[in-house]
Amino acid sequence: VNPTLVGTPPALAGDVQSEKDVRGIAIDQVGIRGLRYPILVEGDDGPQPSIACWELTVGLQADHRGTHMSRFVETLESWGDAPMDGPRLLAMLADVRERLDTTSAEATCAFTLFLHRRAPVSGLLARHGIDCTFEALSRAGGDELALRVRVPVTTLCPCSKEISEYGAHNQRGYVEITARTGSASTLTFGDLIAVAERSGSAVIYPLLKRVDERHVTMQAYDSPTFVEDVVRNAALNLTADRRIEAFIVEAENQESIHDHSAVASIRWERP
Amino acid sequence: VNPTLVGTPPALAGDVQSEKDVRGIAIDQVGIRGLRYPILVEGDDGPQPSIACWELTVGLQADHRGTHMSRFVETLESWGDAPMDGPRLLAMLADVRERLDTTSAEATCAFTLFLHRRAPVSGLLARHGIDCTFEALSRAGGDELALRVRVPVTTLCPCSKEISEYGAHNQRGYVEITARTGSASTLTFGDLIAVAERSGSAVIYPLLKRVDERHVTMQAYDSPTFVEDVVRNAALNLTADRRIEAFIVEAENQESIHDHSAVASIRWERP
Amino acid sequence: VNPTLVGTPPALAGDVQSEKDVRGIAIDQVGIRGLRYPILVEGDDGPQPSIACWELTVGLQADHRGTHMSRFVETLESWGDAPMDGPRLLAMLADVRERLDTTSAEATCAFTLFLHRRAPVSGLLARHGIDCTFEALSRAGGDELALRVRVPVTTLCPCSKEISEYGAHNQRGYVEITARTGSASTLTFGDLIAVAERSGSAVIYPLLKRVDERHVTMQAYDSPTFVEDVVRNAALNLTADRRIEAFIVEAENQESIHDHSAVASIRWERP
Amino acid sequence: VNPTLVGTPPALAGDVQSEKDVRGIAIDQVGIRGLRYPILVEGDDGPQPSIACWELTVGLQADHRGTHMSRFVETLESWGDAPMDGPRLLAMLADVRERLDTTSAEATCAFTLFLHRRAPVSGLLARHGIDCTFEALSRAGGDELALRVRVPVTTLCPCSKEISEYGAHNQRGYVEITARTGSASTLTFGDLIAVAERSGSAVIYPLLKRVDERHVTMQAYDSPTFVEDVVRNAALNLTADRRIEAFIVEAENQESIHDHSAVASIRWERP
Repeated sequence: VNPTLVGTPPALAGDVQSEKDVRGIAIDQVGIRGLRYPILVEGDDGPQPSIACWELTVGLQADHRGTHMSRFVETLESWGDAPMDGPRLLAMLADVRERLDTTSAEATCAFTLFLHRRAPVSGLLARHGIDCTFEALSRAGGDELALRVRVPVTTLCPCSKEISEYGAHNQRGYVEITARTGSASTLTFGDLIAVAERSGSAVIYPLLKRVDERHVTMQAYDSPTFVEDVVRNAALNLTADRRIEAFIVEAENQESIHDHSAVASIRWERP
Repeated sequence: VNPTLVGTPPALAGDVQSEKDVRGIAIDQVGIRGLRYPILVEGDDGPQPSIACWELTVGLQADHRGTHMSRFVETLESWGDAPMDGPRLLAMLADVRERLDTTSAEATCAFTLFLHRRAPVSGLLARHGIDCTFEALSRAGGDELALRVRVPVTTLCPCSKEISEYGAHNQRGYVEITARTGSASTLTFGDLIAVAERSGSAVIYPLLKRVDERHVTMQAYDSPTFVEDVVRNAALNLTADRRIEAFIVEAENQESIHDHSAVASIRWERP
Repeated sequence: VNPTLVGTPPALAGDVQSEKDVRGIAIDQVGIRGLRYPILVEGDDGPQPSIACWELTVGLQADHRGTHMSRFVETLESWGDAPMDGPRLLAMLADVRERLDTTSAEATCAFTLFLHRRAPVSGLLARHGIDCTFEALSRAGGDELALRVRVPVTTLCPCSKEISEYGAHNQRGYVEITARTGSASTLTFGDLIAVAERSGSAVIYPLLKRVDERHVTMQAYDSPTFVEDVVRNAALNLTADRRIEAFIVEAENQESIHDHSAVASIRWERP
Repeated sequence: VNPTLVGTPPALAGDVQSEKDVRGIAIDQVGIRGLRYPILVEGDDGPQPSIACWELTVGLQADHRGTHMSRFVETLESWGDAPMDGPRLLAMLADVRERLDTTSAEATCAFTLFLHRRAPVSGLLARHGIDCTFEALSRAGGDELALRVRVPVTTLCPCSKEISEYGAHNQRGYVEITARTGSASTLTFGDLIAVAERSGSAVIYPLLKRVDERHVTMQAYDSPTFVEDVVRNAALNLTADRRIEAFIVEAENQESIHDHSAVASIRWERP
């Protein structure tokens, strides 16, 4: 047998995945992870192409031995043509449930979103890539949807400023916000990015001329923030947005005076 | 002022961290992440040196502006001399709570544990490094402790074996088990590693001679396992261990026929 | 001073970068690394959008203190509209040299290229993302251009097959080829990907149905390859392509029977 | 056949690695990568345990089909008991050449070295982990040895300081030095770490109290350094050390005002 020449292969027995399983243990999630696939997402001036890294899983009943891994990729391929957003992702997961005959399906879809970013004084334009992620769950009891962003900011240490005669250590920090929202919510990644960027000492830009660098240097010195301040600032704005049902916000400062990070996090659910 | 020559610096005002905070928001976790520190851990023949990567955090009351980051490192330095285990880690966290005057303290402590591993036929010895992690929480309401291992295994695809006239695709997989246990439990990383290794198609070794390679090749072919089988096999053994109060087990196969992974996970809590 | 309100900032003195440097040491490369930017690249059916991760550097004369970092980003922004290929990248680097008044400029531009990939028996289509990189150097003495691909393949161990009564361990491997070619060469990433995929035991696909899985399983068993075979197979095809002036080929197998990799590499320059 | 019970397996034919290869292509390097193994290394107060990540390879003649991968691990296991340094590593590679009957053997051995580090004003002690790597080549024509360190520093931007009325952006940077030295050289990792740390705006510490934080904040403001300055400062000290035959120094600043890095590098060989 030379398998490379097989044209019409023999009918295959052995649908092992469909065998009965007798261990009596349901599986919470089974599927694929780390699949890169082209995607369209909504940017600040319409749909933009990006590249998603997908995790797609389903729940598996106790009496089924295995799921059908290839159907996840088939689903992605067949849903690939329109911009992805929350409602569309949940519809795709409903399709996954039908294709795989399961009661639940989940997705994590991570990609880079580019924003046009204008330098604060010179006004020069450049593109700023931000890590964004959809998290979605489709099941009989009701859908769930969350958006996540991880946004770089400058943070300047209030303590260092206060105790020093001049200067203050500052560094790049990342603000990560995961916000659960309604399945038909108008909440966007841009909304969360704006909250994150307002929480630190200064906004980060891809392109800064000298007049801009002067601006952000002094802005950071005027607005010192501990990692604790960053998460509290973000929390105040997130709780005020009625579209957000729950959130986790975490700040991580890549301390310029240490080789480790400072971190803080708040978890919150609307009462 | 030449700060490098400062001998007795002026008394510093500005204990900014101790300021009152008026935003009224408590912080779930604040502290340090990514600090490498030498550690002693229990191996299969007594204490062995390793290198831990620490995350250490505390809860912060709503009216405190900041925590005292340096005290985490001071605590590690002062607790560094004896082998780390669950009870000792919880005692260290109680000390953190006292040093930082907080009601909760948490730790994630990740390190490599080396096991002596004898090749299955030749009997040759070599060291096998496994990723292990302590997770611990100290608070008034009661301590929590969990052990995590991430163990490489060989998995051979039952479907591929069944449908092919010869051969079967196989690959490296990782079984990750996080098990919550009592604060004085006798559960060890070695116990969890043994469960993980029994769950796949064959055990992985650092050193294999030809007779050993023949052995593991045929062993894997004789014991095909889907990623679904791996987590179910592990779950059966984990639920049978009364020391385990709850667990998450996840298997990830680095599929040899795809450029993405197959994954499965089960979460369980003792009723 | 509230820097956020600065409209027409004062003329800035302090063009520190343009100061004379007296240490007398030229710098081989100075610039930016890790900048994500949208890009168009040639795919198997025309230009496709992707996301590049850029390193852009220039040489710096001994008597200049610093380069002008913002000009790298300005250059990317102004060259962003047409598909990137070797000649265009070298033209962009010539522009960088002019903008930064230097004698050399270098680029490393890494991105994901998606190929349409048809499953070998069922013929089902899906997209397969491959890591591709341009490396380019522009200088007075002549331009240099190299293409790099990192391609997943299946490799099946000849020794394991030979010594075992049944089965053979196999795994995912990666073949990385960096090929130097003329600045106007017709060599494409697709050419190098084809060489890499022919070098292992079987090609990797994003989407395989059972008939396809049977095919690749048996194909791999019929074509066992050591990591040494993979690099020699690739080398034979690369030396035969007269467009290639020099290459490095490396194979890395993520051994399914170990927790470490097997690697092999060959460096070659056309005599 | 139940391979798990095989006690004295049949004599195996099939030493496939020792087959003649007819493609006529020598392989520059073939071996293992990513193997973790315990190691002893010289610290600032005697030998200290660490964990090495090894790449071990040999050259392979054109007429040999494969190398013997297991012998690399056997070598490590048998050489594991004494502190590793340059001469010992080269002796181990000579042993590898003999065990594998080849004319060249190479090693890359990466590990964390902990230094005792005293805070600059308070004098408090803590351990500071630094990434260190041995690179070694053993061959008939003569041995080669290089040491590499990757050292975190604070860098404060001279331009930002000059153009701003107050403050200056600063960040964590990494200085990576790879220095080739004689096979019996007295050059240590500590020597290179000292050079790297003197090249930035301020040294980084694991533990800083408020008086220390004041010190390093002002020290950095008093010593602004571009990434270009960092590599030139290091280069001046490296060329002055006669034990160093050649070096590459690279600085990477994790810019606090951007989401990308600034980099600079110098390569040098003693004339």
